[in-house]
Amino acid sequence: MSAAESAHLGRALCIITGASRGFGRAVALDLSRLLLPGSVLVLAARSGADLRAVEAELAGRAGLSVRSVEADVGQSEGLDGVMSACKEASSADIDHLILINNAASLGDVSRFTTGFTSLPEVDSYMSLNVSSPLCLTAGVLRAVPRRAGLRRTVVNVSSLCALRPFRSWVLYCTGKAARDMTFRVLAEEEPDVRVLSYSPGPLDTDMQREARSHTADPDIRKSFSDMFSEGQLLSCQASCAKLLKLLLEDAFTSGDHVDVYDV
Amino acid sequence: MSAAESAHLGRALCIITGASRGFGRAVALDLSRLLLPGSVLVLAARSGADLRAVEAELAGRAGLSVRSVEADVGQSEGLDGVMSACKEASSADIDHLILINNAASLGDVSRFTTGFTSLPEVDSYMSLNVSSPLCLTAGVLRAVPRRAGLRRTVVNVSSLCALRPFRSWVLYCTGKAARDMTFRVLAEEEPDVRVLSYSPGPLDTDMQREARSHTADPDIRKSFSDMFSEGQLLSCQASCAKLLKLLLEDAFTSGDHVDVYDV
Repeated sequence: MSAAESAHLGRALCIITGASRGFGRAVALDLSRLLLPGSVLVLAARSGADLRAVEAELAGRAGLSVRSVEADVGQSEGLDGVMSACKEASSADIDHLILINNAASLGDVSRFTTGFTSLPEVDSYMSLNVSSPLCLTAGVLRAVPRRAGLRRTVVNVSSLCALRPFRSWVLYCTGKAARDMTFRVLAEEEPDVRVLSYSPGPLDTDMQREARSHTADPDIRKSFSDMFSEGQLLSCQASCAKLLKLLLEDAFTSGDHVDVYDV
Repeated sequence: MSAAESAHLGRALCIITGASRGFGRAVALDLSRLLLPGSVLVLAARSGADLRAVEAELAGRAGLSVRSVEADVGQSEGLDGVMSACKEASSADIDHLILINNAASLGDVSRFTTGFTSLPEVDSYMSLNVSSPLCLTAGVLRAVPRRAGLRRTVVNVSSLCALRPFRSWVLYCTGKAARDMTFRVLAEEEPDVRVLSYSPGPLDTDMQREARSHTADPDIRKSFSDMFSEGQLLSCQASCAKLLKLLLEDAFTSGDHVDVYDV
């Protein structure tokens, strides 16, 4: 694809969940460089300390207002906190709403499917990874409704696991497949919203370390270890650059799942 | 496909959720005809009255033992009840374990995705439709483990909605996509278990009536009304016959999604 690339993402209200570490942090730091003065960044994460560190890194960006929300978006109170910040930050000056649904958890990969007999455990996983992005997206789109001159973009941070089953990753695969479908339905319903499920690839993050050390299936575990030792993991920044390219070009089909390796 | 068809499903322990109405009831009534004497049917549903009606219809089947469990499988206590009945019914005489994960709900189709801002509401949907079949399958496979002479078959009652997005059906599509992936992972992990996601087609059930009267999207609602008025809905019995054919032939690829129209 070689669509004409815009130089910036406008005067945006941008909400990023899971923004304190890994891919979410990279998006917060690098997407913000593409925002025009007057933009607002709402960053949500569970760790206040990590959030403040990201905020400190963003301190020098002229014309950018940053609001950090220490919140577990897998809980109603956490979602409420993000929604409040979003409503306060929304204004008629904004010409682009960008929501990055990044928060997610790996789940316990040390067990196979037959190890998951506890309903509360699985419910809790689905709440953070499936229900929460659905409810947050619904709330944000209602809080910042369609109006002339406003673009709205929603990103679902997805995974190859949304498309392919991996042994001992039943929670992660199930959750990512569910999310992709949520956002496909949204794209069908809201033709004026740009919806992207972006698969960032195997990233050099804490989640990958957990994957290669704890995955129950030996073949899958070895493939992660090999990717690490052979230097095949992507940096969050490199993958984020591909996502930003997609957003600047704005030529993806709404609702599609796009893999980092296809950008 | 024209694989050799077995005449029966063996001396089975067969567990069916959502067994009191619609497709689950049809499976209970018709699958039981294919079981050898000594088989046990565990039927779970929320409505005790409807369950007793099914039990009454099954009363004349010689050599078949039926255990009804009045339970909401979207709750831990409900799952525990089904698990207890399954453990009590399991014995060394059984040569086939069959679990039919049929229980499901449509969700509120009168709203579009942006209408779902309540985390507890979405959590509750995902608990019944995603977490519960995962946990029940895990529990049943642990309670009736692999042994010589025992076949194990797990069916996920799926839908076209697992594969394609439908406007105003975000909960149903998300849940069904999630379930298909759960069972694909299971199939990868447990090569000795036969795993089938079966899409029974548009059935003439209460759920369809709800769909054609309440679906928010007018085009989708009309397509359901048209299917109904043009006599295109399938009877539960006709669709169940296709599922039973798949189980008797036992030639599907484990983990696959098979549509009624492809049988």
